[in-house]
Amino acid sequence: MKYNANSSIPISDIKITDEFWNKYRDLVGKVIIPYQWDVLNDRLEDVETSHCIENFKIAAGLSNGKFEGAVFQDTDLAKWLEAVGFYLAAYGCDEKLEAMADEAIDLIEKAQQPDGYLDTFFIINAPDKKWKNLCEGHELYTAGHFMEAAVAYYEATGKRKIIDVVCRLADLLCDVFGKEEGKCHGYPGHPEVEVGLVKLYRVTGEKKYLDLAKHFIDIRGVGDNYFLEEEKQEDFERIFPEFINYDPSYSQSHLPVRQQKTAEGHAVRAAYLYSAMADVAVETDDKELLDACKVLWDDMVHRRMYVTGSIGSSGWLERFTTDYDLPNDCNYSESCASIGLAMFGKRMGEITGEATYFDEVERALYNTVLSGIAMDGKGFFYVNPLEVWPAACMDHTSRLHVKSERQKWFGVACCPPNIARTLASLGQYIAYKSKNKLYLNMYVSSKIKAEVSGKEVRLDIKSEIPWNGKVSVHVESDEQMEGTLALRIPYYAKNPKISVSGAGLDMKQDKGYINITLSSTSMDVSFEFDMPARFVHSNPKVRADVGKLAIMKGPLVYALEQVDNGDNLANIFVSGKTKLQEEFDNNILGGTTRITFNAQRIKEEGWDSGKLYGEVESDFEEVKLTAIPYCYWGNRQKNEEMLVWMKEKF
Amino acid sequence: MKYNANSSIPISDIKITDEFWNKYRDLVGKVIIPYQWDVLNDRLEDVETSHCIENFKIAAGLSNGKFEGAVFQDTDLAKWLEAVGFYLAAYGCDEKLEAMADEAIDLIEKAQQPDGYLDTFFIINAPDKKWKNLCEGHELYTAGHFMEAAVAYYEATGKRKIIDVVCRLADLLCDVFGKEEGKCHGYPGHPEVEVGLVKLYRVTGEKKYLDLAKHFIDIRGVGDNYFLEEEKQEDFERIFPEFINYDPSYSQSHLPVRQQKTAEGHAVRAAYLYSAMADVAVETDDKELLDACKVLWDDMVHRRMYVTGSIGSSGWLERFTTDYDLPNDCNYSESCASIGLAMFGKRMGEITGEATYFDEVERALYNTVLSGIAMDGKGFFYVNPLEVWPAACMDHTSRLHVKSERQKWFGVACCPPNIARTLASLGQYIAYKSKNKLYLNMYVSSKIKAEVSGKEVRLDIKSEIPWNGKVSVHVESDEQMEGTLALRIPYYAKNPKISVSGAGLDMKQDKGYINITLSSTSMDVSFEFDMPARFVHSNPKVRADVGKLAIMKGPLVYALEQVDNGDNLANIFVSGKTKLQEEFDNNILGGTTRITFNAQRIKEEGWDSGKLYGEVESDFEEVKLTAIPYCYWGNRQKNEEMLVWMKEKF
Repeated sequence: MKYNANSSIPISDIKITDEFWNKYRDLVGKVIIPYQWDVLNDRLEDVETSHCIENFKIAAGLSNGKFEGAVFQDTDLAKWLEAVGFYLAAYGCDEKLEAMADEAIDLIEKAQQPDGYLDTFFIINAPDKKWKNLCEGHELYTAGHFMEAAVAYYEATGKRKIIDVVCRLADLLCDVFGKEEGKCHGYPGHPEVEVGLVKLYRVTGEKKYLDLAKHFIDIRGVGDNYFLEEEKQEDFERIFPEFINYDPSYSQSHLPVRQQKTAEGHAVRAAYLYSAMADVAVETDDKELLDACKVLWDDMVHRRMYVTGSIGSSGWLERFTTDYDLPNDCNYSESCASIGLAMFGKRMGEITGEATYFDEVERALYNTVLSGIAMDGKGFFYVNPLEVWPAACMDHTSRLHVKSERQKWFGVACCPPNIARTLASLGQYIAYKSKNKLYLNMYVSSKIKAEVSGKEVRLDIKSEIPWNGKVSVHVESDEQMEGTLALRIPYYAKNPKISVSGAGLDMKQDKGYINITLSSTSMDVSFEFDMPARFVHSNPKVRADVGKLAIMKGPLVYALEQVDNGDNLANIFVSGKTKLQEEFDNNILGGTTRITFNAQRIKEEGWDSGKLYGEVESDFEEVKLTAIPYCYWGNRQKNEEMLVWMKEKF
Repeated sequence: MKYNANSSIPISDIKITDEFWNKYRDLVGKVIIPYQWDVLNDRLEDVETSHCIENFKIAAGLSNGKFEGAVFQDTDLAKWLEAVGFYLAAYGCDEKLEAMADEAIDLIEKAQQPDGYLDTFFIINAPDKKWKNLCEGHELYTAGHFMEAAVAYYEATGKRKIIDVVCRLADLLCDVFGKEEGKCHGYPGHPEVEVGLVKLYRVTGEKKYLDLAKHFIDIRGVGDNYFLEEEKQEDFERIFPEFINYDPSYSQSHLPVRQQKTAEGHAVRAAYLYSAMADVAVETDDKELLDACKVLWDDMVHRRMYVTGSIGSSGWLERFTTDYDLPNDCNYSESCASIGLAMFGKRMGEITGEATYFDEVERALYNTVLSGIAMDGKGFFYVNPLEVWPAACMDHTSRLHVKSERQKWFGVACCPPNIARTLASLGQYIAYKSKNKLYLNMYVSSKIKAEVSGKEVRLDIKSEIPWNGKVSVHVESDEQMEGTLALRIPYYAKNPKISVSGAGLDMKQDKGYINITLSSTSMDVSFEFDMPARFVHSNPKVRADVGKLAIMKGPLVYALEQVDNGDNLANIFVSGKTKLQEEFDNNILGGTTRITFNAQRIKEEGWDSGKLYGEVESDFEEVKLTAIPYCYWGNRQKNEEMLVWMKEKF
């Protein structure tokens, strides 16, 4: 067995030229990264204090004071640095950003301890507690983010300093953890170091890093639960009060990973673990582990995922619940969890060569990941509900986690830098390759360079997605081309037609792709399909959505906003036979296709008595409604109602 | 102004003979009280340990050990004792129960400290912390329950010992609390002592008890918030971690009570406070305070109450949220809060002479209060959702508070003894009187004795409610009767007809009552109305219910259960024009009227692919459904689906 191992195309070889996505590219480089740098440095007045850089200064002995922030506060800097790395790789040189990053790296290096240890919470706060609370301490999680950041920055700049820092850290981990007697037999309470170790292995060739990642995967959930045992230490100190009566499934440690059949626990932990399992499976040729990944993926996307590609139905503990339990107004659906879903799906798609994985990657990226960030790049959602009634999103209640306005920054700020690094590395989701085949997954206008069958080919992709199903790909090479160009046929493409340099093509799909044989030195591929706005139903087992309709267009989920449609969106009824009218409007939301349609609402008249219950007949009025892409909600008015799933009038 | 002050008829003068309610009378005396006595004494093996009696023994010096249980664990015993008092008063002598109660009283007296202090948590655990954490400490709450219990037991038995105990306690409170300098200016974090003090005043005539109740009402929410100030004490110790960032509206201390316009915070706290406000208003002839009660009542029942008479929409912190926010599957809707609603409504109805208050009292009692207790008296719901999908009611998630099976006992066990005392004192809700008028509110078959216009009249009420709208009242006296008998016309009574000794009566209503002039020495009143099962809508502002229907019959809300209707009740659609067929069946649920009707369901076929989302058309099938009274749900099968609000097929 040989999978498409390490099949990514370097970010630097995928230059995005897309109008839909370039808004975000510009935000990442020009707004988000500098803004977050200011936040990390506590330079902004009307934003919650981060203290992240200050913690590093204290740990480095350059400043005095106490650690402040979450136990995993360091990862804000790591994810920021990774975003800088991706941005520099993808979009070319930016001396100012590189200088900021080099300054950060100098500081990180100074904060690192002589033995390689690097975690400012424990360095400052509790040096005697290192590795003693793996359940909550997040040291390994933090280490993983530094490794990912180091690889991204090194690949972008060729500068080794941060790679050397994380190799020292990784070497320390290899000394501390392992199955051998005398080593710690624990594993991360929050998976992440595993994907970091695999990346570091790929860039350094140091096999012990891969071995440690595999060890963490293999030992997880084996025997007496490590975290429940760890709690019994005499000097154990609880960090998160809500972890009392700890449930091992929260960290996917309830069973050995190969025996897990359902997506359980904290959604981000789950998605990061599954991504690592896929990495280790492909690197170690482990079919059993890959099969476990397939089972978990299927449960996640076919029974526990929102139509917006978000996961984690429970507001409390940000976790999976049970199959088909997808409430729309009190879910967590964390931005970071959708990023994790995209990470996992990309790996599975590349390993198996099956296009279907990218259907869900695309769903997560176009909807929940983008909804997580304001169109000005300065506000963020952690929680991504599908139905918001701001009045009911109150502090001190069950819906306190749901915000009807993007927040400037968060005390626990995992999402903003995670979104930034994802947007900066979007290229990784667009295309990948095996030796003789170049796969196109997401049709984002871009210029790609890749070696196929030993020859460098250059692609110029022009895509009108998500507004129209129209893609053209110019392929050329200095040599006679060989091998295959594989085009993913999205599940929503109606009447797909492909022509190559004017000649039609047999549309026979292979794992969801159409294979085009590369030949000559220049080819023009045209891919066209219908992509009208459409109504979507959920599986009737989803109690929250049965009898309801959502609108999608291509990969985009649409939503109703109060600003267009008035309040009380819950009283709207739509026939599935209603015509959906599309209109591209350059003047709203940076240019977007609005969808208008006829519907009915239950009138509030007749209830003027002010009573709550009665034998009052429902009386409907005709209304004309407007839907906009879900990813753009909350960018015009703040604190207004929003709704994805509308009641169906049969 | 003179209100109908202190207008209750003694429990002992209302003997209930009703088949619907006598099931519960028998449970209270023969099952619940003895069972709870065993629980309080830790005599049952498969039930969570109460430790309640043991705490008293330790406080009394009769046993050694630590305090165990909630900070308000003592109130389990107080409410139990109150239930015994009510039971003895209502249903006559029971030597065994009286012996248990006397044993309990002896123990309570021994636990009381020389200065009158009585709270085993602080006596055992923290004698130096008395009155220092009024926000969380529950000492005043506990005192109130002892006062209520003492009055009930004294009125039933004439035995003074427990009255003397609570008078010593009340005297201590009068010394400790008050507006005078040198006294503590605090007030209860959980209102309850105020209703207790008023009851104690009424039975002893000791005006200072009323004055203290009035003081607690008047000082609440005035100036800098007492609880936020209290937290600043150097030795302050938090009891409930979830009270961090304390929100004063949680305990209705965000504003002076007269300025409060909306029902806020913890629902039980709110209802107990409002009840006390009504008590103080009537006893002190305080129109402003009564007007505040009216505003709060209206907000509560017309904007924040479930159709089942429950309150407290937020699962987290068991509290009110905002107008029209009434989610059905994640609400708290505590049994105790509905008891509080009944307490408040009874007071408002009696004070104002307006029948409408009893519409909601009846709603709460027939639905949420009864649903709180299993038909065998041995299981209890704290939380009373209107929609349950057991698979989704998982630990470690946002729905961890929702149980799909009644629990045997609870670590924090406020509801079971509260339900017991309420069922034992049901008579208080049936009738009350002013000097010249006897009001009938709830038509529960019973024999009532009361003085009207100076003469003792005896009523024999025979009622077929809730199954049929048929009530007969035989009224007699040894003397020529004078005054008025007022019959409440329930809001659901269709075509009501009243005849007196055969002669029809003008149905002109006065504040929701029909007045019947009492004359001669014997009269027969017949009250008949139609009460067919009916569909009910909610106000369309209720996002959770708009486009849905509930079934009611008289005061009863009906529910669908999985045992009758299969699973996935969310995919049921019912036309509001469907005929509801009623059938009384002696063989289910102790004899009940079932309602059957035709409906449609969305088929799950067509989704065999196992996918979550798609362009699959909804396909309906015809089904015949059965609804049973909501109060009886979960008494046949355990852990099955239940649903009140069904989707409407228009």
